[in-house]
Amino acid sequence: MNTETVRVAVDMAVFTVRDNRLWILMIRRGRRPYEGMLALPGGFLEPGEDLDQAAYRELTEETGVLPSHMHLEQFRSYGSPGRDPRGRVVAVAYFALIPSPPKTEAGGDAAEVEWTPVDDLLRADADIAFDHRRILADAAEQVRAKLEYTTVATRFCGETFTISQLRQVYEAVWDRSLDPANFYRKVTKIAGFVVPTGQTTSIGGGRPAGLYRAGDAQTLEPPMYRPR
Amino acid sequence: MNTETVRVAVDMAVFTVRDNRLWILMIRRGRRPYEGMLALPGGFLEPGEDLDQAAYRELTEETGVLPSHMHLEQFRSYGSPGRDPRGRVVAVAYFALIPSPPKTEAGGDAAEVEWTPVDDLLRADADIAFDHRRILADAAEQVRAKLEYTTVATRFCGETFTISQLRQVYEAVWDRSLDPANFYRKVTKIAGFVVPTGQTTSIGGGRPAGLYRAGDAQTLEPPMYRPR
Repeated sequence: MNTETVRVAVDMAVFTVRDNRLWILMIRRGRRPYEGMLALPGGFLEPGEDLDQAAYRELTEETGVLPSHMHLEQFRSYGSPGRDPRGRVVAVAYFALIPSPPKTEAGGDAAEVEWTPVDDLLRADADIAFDHRRILADAAEQVRAKLEYTTVATRFCGETFTISQLRQVYEAVWDRSLDPANFYRKVTKIAGFVVPTGQTTSIGGGRPAGLYRAGDAQTLEPPMYRPR
Repeated sequence: MNTETVRVAVDMAVFTVRDNRLWILMIRRGRRPYEGMLALPGGFLEPGEDLDQAAYRELTEETGVLPSHMHLEQFRSYGSPGRDPRGRVVAVAYFALIPSPPKTEAGGDAAEVEWTPVDDLLRADADIAFDHRRILADAAEQVRAKLEYTTVATRFCGETFTISQLRQVYEAVWDRSLDPANFYRKVTKIAGFVVPTGQTTSIGGGRPAGLYRAGDAQTLEPPMYRPR
């Protein structure tokens, strides 16, 4: 049997919402290969580590982001021959959702840590290392689809949030405008999506808005579809 | 950097529907480790191969199943230390859906190829090699959930099928009885799920039933939920 020796890496697409856009955490590589280019944070599996452990470790090492309150999910592995000039590397890719960009600190292979709007990276001729352009495009589509079928949008919000803030998350991730009244009606009808806290807030001196927290449901029944 | 050398395997959960139940293709191992125990078909990645290529190759080698008309989808990677006594192995797991059990032929690591009802494997104290009990449980749940949100149920049917045959697929995979009239109404209302061929069939001499083929849609809008 002709068995090949491979190294296994974990790569992380860490997303947040800011200024009505979806942002992703990239590092600027401080080492060869692809020195100076943007890449997803990640690195090789270490002895005795499970894949999820490696993902949490690399995220902390390279970015300083702490795993608490983060939604981390494995979504696909990539193994084309030639995807890494250093030899055969299979990448197990994860995406993570975090409420707001925390203070980050570069370490490991990362010279700099940068939050960048996803659309800018996918549209422009940005220099992206390895096959990370494809991985980040797949990850972004995963997140857009997850917002249709699951309750993960609340992971982009703080502990409590208004329905209007939740709508802004949907608008940013999908890059679509949504009708506020229609959004409010749908969201509050889905069992276990959001739960009223009984408190209100009045941002900007407007009419007081109800504050909600995430409910227990994992899936949205019915789903919330992206406008076509 | 303490980088570990790993071997990468692909493991396949191949499902079909027969006798109103969901069946999975297992091999009985002809070699150590776990000689004589049931395992998912699979094997190590070879030089120059992509992950998907390895999955198709192993499936053909170990089972004789041809990849045409098969729905093959990567769903998760497994990398716990100690999951393989031969050393560090990361498994990239796939599931495949096929219309009816074709003639299979054991080869490679497989002494015998066996179609087995999924529930029997998960319920009984079946001797299952490696962490394949968990992988097959995850794969079966993936398939059950895919039937809620996507059109893949048609992959279990032949080229043409009656709505009643499609319902029997849902009943087998979900292990639930479904109301025929309600199922018919839902299925025929979802755009692009099934398309009438204009032909009819009369199985068992009953009233002629319309024959359908799979439509172009990938997702079910709205979804078809499992009865709770």
